[in-house]
Amino acid sequence: MNIDFEISKNIQPLQGKNIVITGGLGFLGSNLAHSLVNIGAKVTIIDNLNPLYGGNFYNIREIKDKVTIIINDIRNKEVISPFLKEAELIFHLAAQVSYIDSLNMPFEDLDLNAGSTLMILELLRKFNPTCKVIFSSSRMVLGKVTTNKMTEETFTNPLSLYGIHKLTSEKYLQMYFKDFGIPFVILRITNPYGLRQQVKHNKYSLVGWFIRQAMSGQTIKIFGEGKQLRDYIFSEDLTEGLLKCATANNAIGEIINLGSGIPTEFREMVKLIINIVGKGNLEFIPWPIDYEKLETGDISTDIGKLFRITNWKPNISLKDGITFTYEYLNKHYKYYF
Amino acid sequence: MNIDFEISKNIQPLQGKNIVITGGLGFLGSNLAHSLVNIGAKVTIIDNLNPLYGGNFYNIREIKDKVTIIINDIRNKEVISPFLKEAELIFHLAAQVSYIDSLNMPFEDLDLNAGSTLMILELLRKFNPTCKVIFSSSRMVLGKVTTNKMTEETFTNPLSLYGIHKLTSEKYLQMYFKDFGIPFVILRITNPYGLRQQVKHNKYSLVGWFIRQAMSGQTIKIFGEGKQLRDYIFSEDLTEGLLKCATANNAIGEIINLGSGIPTEFREMVKLIINIVGKGNLEFIPWPIDYEKLETGDISTDIGKLFRITNWKPNISLKDGITFTYEYLNKHYKYYF
Repeated sequence: MNIDFEISKNIQPLQGKNIVITGGLGFLGSNLAHSLVNIGAKVTIIDNLNPLYGGNFYNIREIKDKVTIIINDIRNKEVISPFLKEAELIFHLAAQVSYIDSLNMPFEDLDLNAGSTLMILELLRKFNPTCKVIFSSSRMVLGKVTTNKMTEETFTNPLSLYGIHKLTSEKYLQMYFKDFGIPFVILRITNPYGLRQQVKHNKYSLVGWFIRQAMSGQTIKIFGEGKQLRDYIFSEDLTEGLLKCATANNAIGEIINLGSGIPTEFREMVKLIINIVGKGNLEFIPWPIDYEKLETGDISTDIGKLFRITNWKPNISLKDGITFTYEYLNKHYKYYF
Repeated sequence: MNIDFEISKNIQPLQGKNIVITGGLGFLGSNLAHSLVNIGAKVTIIDNLNPLYGGNFYNIREIKDKVTIIINDIRNKEVISPFLKEAELIFHLAAQVSYIDSLNMPFEDLDLNAGSTLMILELLRKFNPTCKVIFSSSRMVLGKVTTNKMTEETFTNPLSLYGIHKLTSEKYLQMYFKDFGIPFVILRITNPYGLRQQVKHNKYSLVGWFIRQAMSGQTIKIFGEGKQLRDYIFSEDLTEGLLKCATANNAIGEIINLGSGIPTEFREMVKLIINIVGKGNLEFIPWPIDYEKLETGDISTDIGKLFRITNWKPNISLKDGITFTYEYLNKHYKYYF
């Protein structure tokens, strides 16, 4: 697989467009930047490279001369204003991305995961109200899901500050659309993994972290029986989904689940990793008390709305996604471990 | 009517209790403080007397020697921590209270109406997790209501930053209860009016503002036909409701609508005021565009849950409430106009 995968024809409208990606050196942002550069968009990346988050200059080494890179915090209004004023489309992906860390840094999480969205919308309201905002929200806005399938109408009952602040950002986007016409699309992303995601610790993606553990021949520890269902979505599918939703006119003003649509038992994911990597072991251990409180139960995602709006759905299997991720990490490990 | 009205027997459990009221010099807080002092609670008031909000030292002149008063901002962690650590019950009422102003000061609204709740909960989590928090939320968390009766399960779709941030605070309280056991009661207050509410401008209560206009012999202007329904609740009923919910064990962990339960046409409220005050005129004018966006439609509040939990419901008629408010303002106008 070429990691700069082929782009579908229907996202050609983005060619030549002035596009800002906040958090553009991170996992989601850098994959997206590659695709946007390939289709000829004018890309500006804003990223503070905060070592606590996922930004990594290595992620965009192949395209660094084809994008504008602003190493600054998106909350630095004076610096980012000129870029937001000129943008035709903003992918607002910058975030504190760990729901566990959100409780260790509650006010930073509030400021970054809610406050920065408010700041972007305030700037657009005053200077650029036709600019569309694509926002990476999360299934974590729902909390413990008690329905069979998680739809976009499922009741929001977040269990973490991360989930609460993502929900607050969703409410901002809906309000600024209704009150001031600023177009938005909210993607509620399930469990993302794949290329260019850092694996320095276990807080971003357990898929990536377990691949790293397996590569080091370690024992992977699973809480409980590991039967809880999760919806894992690979970076290529994520990028394609973001682009499809950014260009679909009927996506404007909508909340859309972006997951694979395929529920997988946690332990099945781990077994796939051990098989593909060819190393590592599996051990079942009791749930730590702090994690159990945040445990969301089985996740099974309804992606019918995504398909109805884009006529597309994710198509990389978990087996292939893990294989591609392993190959990428194997080749570039020193920039991600 | 004696404004220090009689307290029901079932709130005696608060006698001798260490109680903190944030925003205790404001409208809700000062009425509550009078009742709590009367039943022998040890009351600490924290209020920053920010001239933009409703704090007014005159509100507690009769009880000033019977309460501890901290003139400071609740966001000043070092100052307020010792009081929160000792509290057995906190009424968290401090707020930016105008939904219209919230758009003029978006980050102040975020900081005060969401951030301060987070700070209180973080302090309680670390130092005083059995302390109960009673929170004054608002019907504005719902936005435009399309159902006949607004219940506690009605979908939240706020149209203002004020409503979004009150909702964020609700989510914090629910999360800290689920994750850390900190008990809470959320009261979703409808349109409050009454004694000790300031009427310096029209942003707090239109009832109070129109009474002032009528007292000055002015023309009261109504947008549109004035047929939209509202639920007005008088200060004495509000205080009683706050106390009932603070002492009912089955209220813990619940969101409860606190309104009169009686929908009234906007223009009926204005006509009552003009009749009671005996001055002023009425004029119908078109909706200003900025207000129409925020207009929430007819509001009719289901207070069945309040009654089921407390076996009590508000009982001051709008006519009596307006009469008491007028008499109070007539006597003390120079401290509220």
